[in-house]
Formats: sequence, structure tokens, C-alpha cells
Amino acid sequence: MPSHTENKGRLAIVGLGPGKREYMTARALKVIAGAEYVLGHSTYLEPLEPLLTGKQVISSSMGKEVDRAQQAIDLAKKHAVAIVSGGDAGVYGMASIVLEVLEHDGADIEVEVVPGVTAANAAASRVGSPLSGDFAVISLSDLLTPLEIIGKRLEAIFGLGIPVVLYNPKSRGRPHNFALAVEHARHHLGKDTPIAIVRNALRENEETIITTLGEIEEHEPAIDMHTTVIIGGSESRIWKRGDDVKGIITPRGYHRKYVY
Amino acid sequence: MPSHTENKGRLAIVGLGPGKREYMTARALKVIAGAEYVLGHSTYLEPLEPLLTGKQVISSSMGKEVDRAQQAIDLAKKHAVAIVSGGDAGVYGMASIVLEVLEHDGADIEVEVVPGVTAANAAASRVGSPLSGDFAVISLSDLLTPLEIIGKRLEAIFGLGIPVVLYNPKSRGRPHNFALAVEHARHHLGKDTPIAIVRNALRENEETIITTLGEIEEHEPAIDMHTTVIIGGSESRIWKRGDDVKGIITPRGYHRKYVY
Repeated sequence: MPSHTENKGRLAIVGLGPGKREYMTARALKVIAGAEYVLGHSTYLEPLEPLLTGKQVISSSMGKEVDRAQQAIDLAKKHAVAIVSGGDAGVYGMASIVLEVLEHDGADIEVEVVPGVTAANAAASRVGSPLSGDFAVISLSDLLTPLEIIGKRLEAIFGLGIPVVLYNPKSRGRPHNFALAVEHARHHLGKDTPIAIVRNALRENEETIITTLGEIEEHEPAIDMHTTVIIGGSESRIWKRGDDVKGIITPRGYHRKYVY
Repeated sequence: MPSHTENKGRLAIVGLGPGKREYMTARALKVIAGAEYVLGHSTYLEPLEPLLTGKQVISSSMGKEVDRAQQAIDLAKKHAVAIVSGGDAGVYGMASIVLEVLEHDGADIEVEVVPGVTAANAAASRVGSPLSGDFAVISLSDLLTPLEIIGKRLEAIFGLGIPVVLYNPKSRGRPHNFALAVEHARHHLGKDTPIAIVRNALRENEETIITTLGEIEEHEPAIDMHTTVIIGGSESRIWKRGDDVKGIITPRGYHRKYVY
């Protein structure tokens, strides 16, 4: 790797984790502290504000990801730049588009992707252990993936009985995709299949709901673009303490080997 | 939630991330700092050593997870206990077995699951952006899941053309499961499908190999129990700078909407 000179910039694509600073990695904090320019969606930049003093901050709204990527690359030709994503930058985040645009641009910039706690893991941690074994991550946004393909994926994966994490489960632009996902789930999973709705996981105004595939319609209004939904697999079950519902457990299979 | 009294313990199930302390969250560090007892596999405890002064440390080898879970729960009836997992505690980690044993035990202990950067995201960050959209996480260990079921899952998911992250791709006890996964991949994916082999992601002695489904046999000896393997999907491609192979990009689909 080339050593840094004063004329040479660098670009970090940084996953911030769920939102609160205590769930960021030390590496993410360090890279942001060392940046001259910080780019990102305003939602993600707000919790960072105390760290941004003296830096050039370029905040943007949703959309325009291609422009934002090109701007980050142009700045990184001479400066230390951090472009931030919520969660993990490599999962529905900025990493791929920045690397694609960089490849087209051809600039010889040092790049680092800093991983973060992705929404699947943040949400799961608030409701027990729903993803203990194999699982799949599917976005219900049909902005970049045709709805037909999303449906085909859901159908096949629910058929395997493994838990599925739904990113972007609903937004004003696509209010019906969640109902479609539920329909696919019902082709394969029983009505007692546990479902977790986690809104603002490990952020301000966090809310969690534990329900089942049979009763999901009742809770659908709670689902929005700040929500991650985990649909359990065929082995997942509600986790209780006495009569209190605490969350979801997907056993890893120790019960097939040990008595406890 | 009940307030703490001196007689009442608490239990944290903590994901440490890939290994180096700079990829832990501040929350994980804080919970470990506040624990009287820290339990975990010796591999995961070693990098924490400077934090463990003055604590009771109970280190164990692989296996005996059920006993370790019960021990953590018994201690947590009166003490502040942290039980640690590499990566995210909810993904092939200790969270599910601890919660299962706790449910059987019936003890009224306050429990917190602290999420971490899981191996899928740590490994992906070292090789570009291979998991940018939907993906699945499958373990090739047949210790707790029958091999037949693993094969069925692989066959269906490769058929969808989404990237697959293989955890536990090989160990001395199951040297042939990786070849089986490759066979399933070849039923659906072309020989140019990119594959990343990431050994010790974000730990000491990190190694990455970018290859293809057509040439994977050549690199199979590099795969061991410290390795995460990412098999790209139908849209994944090698990321190059000039003639240098830098990693893998799975485009999110912006190219279908924008020119860049």
C-alpha cells in the first residue's frame, strides 16, 4: 500500500452501527476523528455532532447516492474523507456504490471499509436470540430490486424454515410489500411462528413487539421505515419468563445432543 | 425492570466483534469493565486481557457450551457476569444457549445481549462490498444441524443467486463439507462467480484470497476454522484497479437507474 503524502487523500466508508455512539466501534470513531470531510445522510450525522467540530460536514437526504459517492471520491483525491452509513456500510449501505463509482473514476485512492453492527444483529439483540443459526437478510424495498425477484427469494427462503430479517419492511412509497412477505411466509410457516418488530433498535424511542405470524396484521401499523422485522424459522419459539413474553429463541440444536 | 440490589446479579451476553479491541463497541467494553466474572472461550478472552485485571476469569475450550451457560447463570444470581462470544453473540454464539438454559432454570436475572460486528460483516469489509444487498448466512458445521439440511439450504439459496456467507467452512472433523457447498454452488452459478476467502478477518495474521468458483479448488487448502468464505451471487463481480484484483463488488442495482 502506498504511504500517505500531503497531496494524497484517503477514503473511509464507515458503518456507524445502530445509532447511539456506544454501539460504534473504536475504529469508526477514530477514522471519523481523523477525517477532514464527513459525508452522510443527516439522520446518521446528528448523533455524531460532538465529533464533527472543525470538520467539513456534507449532509444529504435519501437518494442521490451516486452523486454523494462521486463527491466523496473527488474530495478524497486530496483530503481525508469519511462517508458514513447507518449499521454496516456493506449491507444496503454506501460501500458498494462508492466502490463502483471509484472503479469507474479510476482514481488511485486508499480505501478502507469500516464494518459496523448491522440492523439484523442490533434488532436481534433486543429480542433474545432469534438468529442463532443460519438466516437470510432480505430488503423489501423494490427501488433497486424488482418486486418479483424479492417475492421469489422470500418464497424459497421461508420454504427452508430459516429465520429471515426484513430490512426496509415498509415505507410510504411501498406500503404493500410487507403484506406480500407475510403471504409468502404463510405458505410455509405455521401461525405460531414468532415475529419480532423492532423499531429504532438501540436508538432513541426504541420499541419492540413480539407477535406471531397468525396475529401480525394487528401489529402491522407499527411497522415503518425505522423498523427491522425478524420472522422466525420453523424452530424459533417465543421466549417466556413465567407468563411474560421476553423475546424469541431460535435454538441452535444443543437439545438434540444434550439434556438440560 | 427491577432495580439492582446488592443481592441481585445480572448477566450480559457480549459479542466481541472480530477480535481486535478497536472493533469492539464501547458498550461491550463497558459491560466487561463492570463485570465481576467474565466467562468465555480462551481465544476470545486473550485480546481482552488488559481489561480483565481484578476479575474472576473462567476460560474454557470449545464444546461444553451448555455447562458454561449454566455456570454463567448460577454466578449471575448474585454477581455481575459477562459471557463473551466472538463476533455477534446472537449468530452461532452463546446467546441462544444461555437464554434456553436460563428459561429452564427459571431464575429472575436481568439479561442484556450486547451485539457485535459478526464475521459476515467483518470479512466482507476486507474484500470490498460483496454483501451489498440480500444475502444468506449458512454454517457448514454439521455438529448441531444435519448435513442433509445444510445441503438443502445451500441448494435453494444458490438457486436464488444471492451471496452466501459460509461460517465454519472447514475443520478437521468435517473436511468435506466445503466441497459439498461448492458442488451445490456449481449447480446454479457460473465459473466466474467471485469467492472471497478471509482468514482471521480484522485479527492478527489476516489473509484474504479473491478467487472464482471455477478455481476454488486451488485455494481450498487455505480454508480452515478461522476462515469465513463469501460466495458471490449472480450479480457479484471482481473489483479491480487497473490489473490489480482488489476484492468483490455486488452492485446494489443503481446501474439500473442511473448512469455513472
